Amino acid sequence: MKVTVVQGIMDANKRVARANQALFARHRLLVLNLMSSPGAGKTALLERTIRDLRGELRIGVIEGDIQTSLDAERIERAGAAYAHQINTQGACHIDGNMIAPVIEEMDLGALDLLVVENVGNLVCPAEFDLGEDRKVVLFSVTEGEDKPKKYPLMFQESDLMLVHKIDLLPHLDTDLALIHRHALEVHPDLTILDLSCKSGQGLEAFYTWLRAEIARKRAAPA
Amino acid sequence: MKVTVVQGIMDANKRVARANQALFARHRLLVLNLMSSPGAGKTALLERTIRDLRGELRIGVIEGDIQTSLDAERIERAGAAYAHQINTQGACHIDGNMIAPVIEEMDLGALDLLVVENVGNLVCPAEFDLGEDRKVVLFSVTEGEDKPKKYPLMFQESDLMLVHKIDLLPHLDTDLALIHRHALEVHPDLTILDLSCKSGQGLEAFYTWLRAEIARKRAAPA
Repeated sequence: MKVTVVQGIMDANKRVARANQALFARHRLLVLNLMSSPGAGKTALLERTIRDLRGELRIGVIEGDIQTSLDAERIERAGAAYAHQINTQGACHIDGNMIAPVIEEMDLGALDLLVVENVGNLVCPAEFDLGEDRKVVLFSVTEGEDKPKKYPLMFQESDLMLVHKIDLLPHLDTDLALIHRHALEVHPDLTILDLSCKSGQGLEAFYTWLRAEIARKRAAPA
Repeated sequence: MKVTVVQGIMDANKRVARANQALFARHRLLVLNLMSSPGAGKTALLERTIRDLRGELRIGVIEGDIQTSLDAERIERAGAAYAHQINTQGACHIDGNMIAPVIEEMDLGALDLLVVENVGNLVCPAEFDLGEDRKVVLFSVTEGEDKPKKYPLMFQESDLMLVHKIDLLPHLDTDLALIHRHALEVHPDLTILDLSCKSGQGLEAFYTWLRAEIARKRAAPA
């Protein structure tokens, strides 16, 4: 019985995700689903990206949090073209249904990139498609080397892994190469970029990836 | 329909949790439910505690992870009196049902303290009682000041908050007092201790708390 209900929820989400995907395709808009543990630095990365690429890219953000609108306020202050806060009221992830009414009201044609910042959680968000083009997992070096093996679905589902806060490496016992190796063991095709919002290291490579993805989406059939 | 099913699961878990609690009471065994984001350092804290208090306290640990037995192996190497790994196979939390068959087989009389290390997740584990005496949330200073406000249930449900990795504070922009203030805003009675497994700072206060809780449980009616 339990399994049947969960299956039903998953199937319903897939249908909504496909409808979202079709809407994004009509606008040839690149959409990222940004996921991580709490405090890995998703909002900080978005703030920095929006500031650095202002004038070049019109970036919209849908913020998912259980409570508060703190993140959407930060994103707005950073100069985002669009910021919307979803409060999940207890739910541990964003699903396709939650963003459907938001993207219907948005002017998707006025954006070059839409990022959905998911609830901070390394487990549940990986299970729900939103209709995004790419899933991106942000992973802080403070979280230790074993997490890709302990939370494999998140790393298997993601297309890009951003290893964050590398400026802290001199103060940790963390082995960066081991993080890479464990992530590639669970997902051999995973693209991995190391970066730090604080030092700026690695950000240009991330922006290059963003530009290439935006160009790919623009050339794709609607 | 969805709400009814979720309610049913919650009610069923409460019944099992009460049965677990009765079993722990018969043995006057203190049981902690240790929760945190992934990588906040739950296993590192338990390893250090087991090593530091070996000879004084017989500590058993039930490890909850989606996959791998890495944590139970670490706990065993640290010298735990008992270590058991539960693999949740995708589930984002430990519930009462998962530990029930484990504690039935254990020699609870041979322990002074049992810790259930939950799946790394700041959301879902807070919703499920295991029959524990105390819920403990471990929070790393690398996670930022806003998390108690963004994930309030975890901090409302917890009896003790351990603020971890304070040795990293000189390398972060984190405001420790603000973490405390936000946590106390959502839970004014919360006990908060700051500590670091790496530097050892604050550990003695945590051990004092443990000893007091064990004494309290031993004096409680079975």
